[in-house]
Amino acid sequence: MAVILGIDPGFRTTGFGVVRMLGSKPQYVMSGCIRVAELPLAERLRTIYDGIKSVILECRPDEVAIEQVFQGKNADSALKLGQARGAAIVAAAEAGIAVSEYSARQVKQAVVGTGAADKTQVQMMVCKLLNLDGVPQADAADAIAIALCHGHGMNNLVHNAGLMLTRRRRGRMR
Amino acid sequence: MAVILGIDPGFRTTGFGVVRMLGSKPQYVMSGCIRVAELPLAERLRTIYDGIKSVILECRPDEVAIEQVFQGKNADSALKLGQARGAAIVAAAEAGIAVSEYSARQVKQAVVGTGAADKTQVQMMVCKLLNLDGVPQADAADAIAIALCHGHGMNNLVHNAGLMLTRRRRGRMR
Repeated sequence: MAVILGIDPGFRTTGFGVVRMLGSKPQYVMSGCIRVAELPLAERLRTIYDGIKSVILECRPDEVAIEQVFQGKNADSALKLGQARGAAIVAAAEAGIAVSEYSARQVKQAVVGTGAADKTQVQMMVCKLLNLDGVPQADAADAIAIALCHGHGMNNLVHNAGLMLTRRRRGRMR
Repeated sequence: MAVILGIDPGFRTTGFGVVRMLGSKPQYVMSGCIRVAELPLAERLRTIYDGIKSVILECRPDEVAIEQVFQGKNADSALKLGQARGAAIVAAAEAGIAVSEYSARQVKQAVVGTGAADKTQVQMMVCKLLNLDGVPQADAADAIAIALCHGHGMNNLVHNAGLMLTRRRRGRMR
């Protein structure tokens, strides 16, 4: 029974999501967003670090998974994102937890069944797979999706859960 | 009497330098490099964070100054540098120390007297200004220069110390 913390780091908002794997069945533990958009740089990074540290202290994850960054961004965005990412990874590394990286495409492929899924599809599938009765915010849903992707060794969760994307596309998602 | 920690963050090597300001006179405290080039990402960032944290615990700086990043780098380098920078800034922010940023140009202007100085000139001037009998490694010298720049409110240290760049250029540096 492994507890996995997924992190979707951002310079404005960092999402986090924790799932517990009971064999191949994922169970929702907690999720949320750390909003830092209005803070000065050092305070912003400290808030991300402290936020992730608190989640780790509360949920005691065995593993951490984080979104790998799309390299096509411009240098300015990449620097900002890198700083947020650094703060989040340090929190995990300080707790002695291994950190794995997955590309957005791998995560979407695992959770929605296609690497080209949009944010809303990720939110919907996260709800479905974890039996949630509310929709997590987009950044939190992304973080949960990263944790799910890691928990399943990148296997296609949609297929495992018997949910077919084609059905959803036709508006017959059960 | 303020103690200032200067940081020159890097994804391969992070330099640090601590100076004590006795009025307008700077005094060398310590400097060094944290080399992380061979480590995996999380371990690398943790080592930077832990290294800066140790320096802070040892020297109890009142203020931290860090090099602002040149935005012209490509997105990949910017992301890597951002991560290292995030890890270093979090260490300072966690200790409750204010972090100031200076561009490489401002630092060189303050320490060498010209914003276009090269690494060797920075190393030489750092030695001269602090009366060092050895030359610090380039990354450590840059970090010391950042601390000096902050300590002097970006004033031209070369002028204050009565050292003229023109003389140095003519090979008559005393």
